[in-house]
Amino acid sequence: MTAYEIIDAKKRGKTLTEGQIRAFVEMVAQERASDAQIAAFCMAVLLRGMTDEETFLLTDAMASSGDRLEKPNEGERYADKHSTGGVSDSTTLILVPVLACLGIKCAKYSGRGLGFTGGTLDKLESFPGFCVELSAERFRKQVEKIGAAIAGQTKSTVPADKRMYAVRDVTATIDSIPLIASSVMSKKLASFADVIQLDVKYGDGAFMQTRADAVRLAKLMVAVGVRAGRQVSAAVTCMDTPLGDSIGCNAEVREVIEVLRGKQNDLQALSLYHCRKILQMAEGIGEQEAERRTREVVRSGAALRKLKEIVEAQGGDARAIDDVSLLPLAPHCMEILAPDSGKVRIGAHALGTACAQLGGGRRKEGDVIDHTVGILLKKRAGDAVERGEVVAEVYYRREDAEALELAKSAVSVTDTYRAEPLVYRSIGKEDL
Amino acid sequence: MTAYEIIDAKKRGKTLTEGQIRAFVEMVAQERASDAQIAAFCMAVLLRGMTDEETFLLTDAMASSGDRLEKPNEGERYADKHSTGGVSDSTTLILVPVLACLGIKCAKYSGRGLGFTGGTLDKLESFPGFCVELSAERFRKQVEKIGAAIAGQTKSTVPADKRMYAVRDVTATIDSIPLIASSVMSKKLASFADVIQLDVKYGDGAFMQTRADAVRLAKLMVAVGVRAGRQVSAAVTCMDTPLGDSIGCNAEVREVIEVLRGKQNDLQALSLYHCRKILQMAEGIGEQEAERRTREVVRSGAALRKLKEIVEAQGGDARAIDDVSLLPLAPHCMEILAPDSGKVRIGAHALGTACAQLGGGRRKEGDVIDHTVGILLKKRAGDAVERGEVVAEVYYRREDAEALELAKSAVSVTDTYRAEPLVYRSIGKEDL
Repeated sequence: MTAYEIIDAKKRGKTLTEGQIRAFVEMVAQERASDAQIAAFCMAVLLRGMTDEETFLLTDAMASSGDRLEKPNEGERYADKHSTGGVSDSTTLILVPVLACLGIKCAKYSGRGLGFTGGTLDKLESFPGFCVELSAERFRKQVEKIGAAIAGQTKSTVPADKRMYAVRDVTATIDSIPLIASSVMSKKLASFADVIQLDVKYGDGAFMQTRADAVRLAKLMVAVGVRAGRQVSAAVTCMDTPLGDSIGCNAEVREVIEVLRGKQNDLQALSLYHCRKILQMAEGIGEQEAERRTREVVRSGAALRKLKEIVEAQGGDARAIDDVSLLPLAPHCMEILAPDSGKVRIGAHALGTACAQLGGGRRKEGDVIDHTVGILLKKRAGDAVERGEVVAEVYYRREDAEALELAKSAVSVTDTYRAEPLVYRSIGKEDL
Repeated sequence: MTAYEIIDAKKRGKTLTEGQIRAFVEMVAQERASDAQIAAFCMAVLLRGMTDEETFLLTDAMASSGDRLEKPNEGERYADKHSTGGVSDSTTLILVPVLACLGIKCAKYSGRGLGFTGGTLDKLESFPGFCVELSAERFRKQVEKIGAAIAGQTKSTVPADKRMYAVRDVTATIDSIPLIASSVMSKKLASFADVIQLDVKYGDGAFMQTRADAVRLAKLMVAVGVRAGRQVSAAVTCMDTPLGDSIGCNAEVREVIEVLRGKQNDLQALSLYHCRKILQMAEGIGEQEAERRTREVVRSGAALRKLKEIVEAQGGDARAIDDVSLLPLAPHCMEILAPDSGKVRIGAHALGTACAQLGGGRRKEGDVIDHTVGILLKKRAGDAVERGEVVAEVYYRREDAEALELAKSAVSVTDTYRAEPLVYRSIGKEDL
């Protein structure tokens, strides 16, 4: 069986067999399939589709394409969480310490930001010295000792996904629901979490533009995870407007610290929502009990102390947790004013892209990030504003007129703002 | 405009603009688009299609991607001919000397064999010393002097096609009608032929499996050529069974010599059909007059002498033209016997593949060809045979049981053989 034959079958709209799927993934991982063959395969999958069964087999084959991480302690419950990427979404940095305080071990593999979306690893590097590259051994030991670790996946985990993702990124083959599902879930299945909470975004600042696509993706990922024997739940949430009030590494880490000190907003609400879902799945408790427990570890300050412990365990300077002025913002500030009176709209995609373009994110892989670049929202989408009121502040180091214009264009005013719910739908195994 | 955006537009089923098509081809030629991007583009075109206008623009952009060959003499008429590839199809080697004798200059760029199809350049190398790599200057001079030259296209002609074809070949993206049309016609448009005769094959031993697809491809290529200001005609012909009675380099060159000495069979008939079409287009004469002239240059021996002249002009040892024993066949011979009595069927694809597998052709690019390997047909498809009669002889050097079995499987016997016409349809500009 050759890569050519497998691409040809998918191109003709055939359902691939288990043998074909496993053979192709093996060729990808062992570099016997070329980048061109991967690209043709991905485009054929994007346009011809895959059955749920094919998607599961692809995910499982990818998860097995490199080292699979062994569960450190069979008696323990481990949790993981994944978001399909958004703007001002620092839920991981809130959720991990909260869960660790509640006795749910978090073995969290995270990624870096690209385009309009931020990345957890970049934000963690706002703590000087923070190390995101942990060996499998050190990662496991840290999870055992303090209940949590957050790191980048090593080269030897899911190598097939690494190659496929790099090719998809430059060949317009990202937006295939089976390919997204298998990329995300292969990394989850290669690790040992028993309980997985997914956040599937839709809207302006998300890969999925519509609710319907987000629900399809969420169901597919839950189905793949459940079939692999994991407990999985997915929240389908809106990303038309930034989740929190801050965009950019230092700004977002500041906000995480504020939330763990008691600040209440959508970022806090969604983070604790995810915590409750994981707690319910892991412990089999009701929603109210889960809510009580999560609120308590924030209220008591335990979660903030746990964040400090994690930062220090990974070699970071955690003093900023007590003194946020150690997380500076860039020297120049442009205010974005309401262009009219009415209800304000704040576009996630434009702000995320503007922040990246100003140096606060990556326009292409390998770009160096300026952690001080950021945007602070002074109003929330849907707030009533008067013409000329400050809606947001953009902090930047080097003038980039185009990026600043883009940021301004993100803010508009309307008469009829209709808020989306925090969570549009929750999808569990009972919804399949 | 990036390669990504152009791929993305085609993936979404959009009609590409002239600007997008020219930009993409330029990126391919200048190696600014990666192989993976070319593969994704080709798969998107294969599955989403292209309008005739897009195909023309793609062809024209590809033809302009490298050096365009200047017409040596504005007052002359130059002819070219192209077949989409078949088994035992040596029409070029017959047609070029015939036309040259008739005063139609043939500036013929040819290719090499791959898979089940043979290649004109490989066959010409059956003459020891024959040089297929001519500089543009030497090529032009030879055409001027003796009326014909047959060579491989140089690296600097149509570089975009070279890269795209190499990628398509390993990514199951060959069988796209717009991509085949633009690949073939870009090479024709980069050269200076005024009159172009196309042979579009359908059936078992062809890229196009059905008559309908072959007609679509033929019409598209004629339309592209006419739009570029050339005189173009296409014959749609069947390739269920080998065209001539010989397969393999030396065997086919022997048969070419026999045809130029007067042998009559389908190879001879189709070769002279193409000659007549070209002559009619070039001279504006009727079919009968064209037939009279072509027959005469074969009958008189002028065409055979012209072949010798071409071989010698390109450095080849032409003694085999007078003594075909200088074109030996491999030492071992396996006879293929009729498995039953009835009408015999002889499959082109299986015989072509078997010959390649025995070393007489290429299974992958770069394979070295054994010119002595070959297959001689002792019966024609449709002939009445008795069980045990010899249908074909397979000449080989090294035993390959699988290839020999494949060759045997090409021969079967039936009660109801229905012959296909030599030319199913002729398509000219009046048929568009």
